[in-house]
Amino acid sequence: MANSGSPTLETERTTLGRHPERGAHDFETIASILDEGLICHVGFTAASHPVVIPTAYGRDGRRLYIHGSAASSMLDTLAGGVRCCLTVTLLDGLVLARSAFRHSLNYRSVMIFGTARSVAGAEKLRGLRVISEHIVRGRWEEMRAPDEGELKASSVLRLDIEEASAKVRTGPPVDSKEDLGRAIWAGVLPLALVPQTPIADEQLPAGVELPSYVREYRRGEAARA
Amino acid sequence: MANSGSPTLETERTTLGRHPERGAHDFETIASILDEGLICHVGFTAASHPVVIPTAYGRDGRRLYIHGSAASSMLDTLAGGVRCCLTVTLLDGLVLARSAFRHSLNYRSVMIFGTARSVAGAEKLRGLRVISEHIVRGRWEEMRAPDEGELKASSVLRLDIEEASAKVRTGPPVDSKEDLGRAIWAGVLPLALVPQTPIADEQLPAGVELPSYVREYRRGEAARA
Repeated sequence: MANSGSPTLETERTTLGRHPERGAHDFETIASILDEGLICHVGFTAASHPVVIPTAYGRDGRRLYIHGSAASSMLDTLAGGVRCCLTVTLLDGLVLARSAFRHSLNYRSVMIFGTARSVAGAEKLRGLRVISEHIVRGRWEEMRAPDEGELKASSVLRLDIEEASAKVRTGPPVDSKEDLGRAIWAGVLPLALVPQTPIADEQLPAGVELPSYVREYRRGEAARA
Repeated sequence: MANSGSPTLETERTTLGRHPERGAHDFETIASILDEGLICHVGFTAASHPVVIPTAYGRDGRRLYIHGSAASSMLDTLAGGVRCCLTVTLLDGLVLARSAFRHSLNYRSVMIFGTARSVAGAEKLRGLRVISEHIVRGRWEEMRAPDEGELKASSVLRLDIEEASAKVRTGPPVDSKEDLGRAIWAGVLPLALVPQTPIADEQLPAGVELPSYVREYRRGEAARA
């Protein structure tokens, strides 16, 4: 297993068998994908069967946080120290080649392997803040913070980013030479997760305005611009 | 385990512990979510560690197909008869409540439990077509179909939808009464996966036009309208 301070997060498990040219193990690539995603898929074994559950997350340096109800069986199982794999996938586009065989998807994904642990006290509150700010930056300062009862009803887990890999496919289709002359449209249809018109809650008191962090909500490149 | 012909796909494993009101086990709900998604996350155990891998898929009735290189270790492991969990998640919006505790996400997700099997011959070709048409309807008839060598280099797996559940959260934030009067904006920021401007391949012969199934590409409600 790689040390968290090492320049690469590669291990035998995260070395890619297929398409090694799409792989990356540097922390910056991994962090940028994690920072753009909104949900992850966490896989673990429960009652001897694999389970994959989508959930929100947030990153603080080399720490990844997930949260949920203290009554959640997923968090309970994970906090018990079982191994897990946390995957984040950004779908960037459909790659339409001339041949069926060369069709593909443009995407960026990260897999993190490890064991999550439950956190308490100051780190628990910090984890909740990290997740909240990851999803909607600026929201934490404005909304009502969790009270003692709510904190007790919440569970926060931390997964350290020690063993991880990224996989990225970008660019046009790669057809075989013999197919290039065919009169078949080929190219990429980019896809983007785009915010739509905000829907204000019906019970909103008069005069409460839409915050700029909602009105100008963006992910990824657009958010950093 | 439920029979594939039963009206419900519920089993002990797919019964929801948390938020049972968000759960659904009817096939129509499950099918509609599967039909809108583009990628799934497949979880299984490899070398005693859980792995979660994103991949494309397609649905044909109660059969779900995934595919990849015949050299893919994921497909190889899955075809070996290990149990898997295939999850599809559609992220519909951010739910901003007055309190941190009541923040949520609007989403629709499906989990399918089972064991995948490798398919060959006519079903293999059919599986590839199902996946292709799932991603871009209309494409299969236009592009060059796989030849014998390409078919040999591909692997197609089938997972029957026998044990499955859907989980859906929709609608506004649900704040506690005491928080409703606060001067904090609350509501939903809907999110949608939106096609961007298509990028034609640089090597496209002159005169090849953008097909309507790319120009008018839509998922979900918009696609059915």
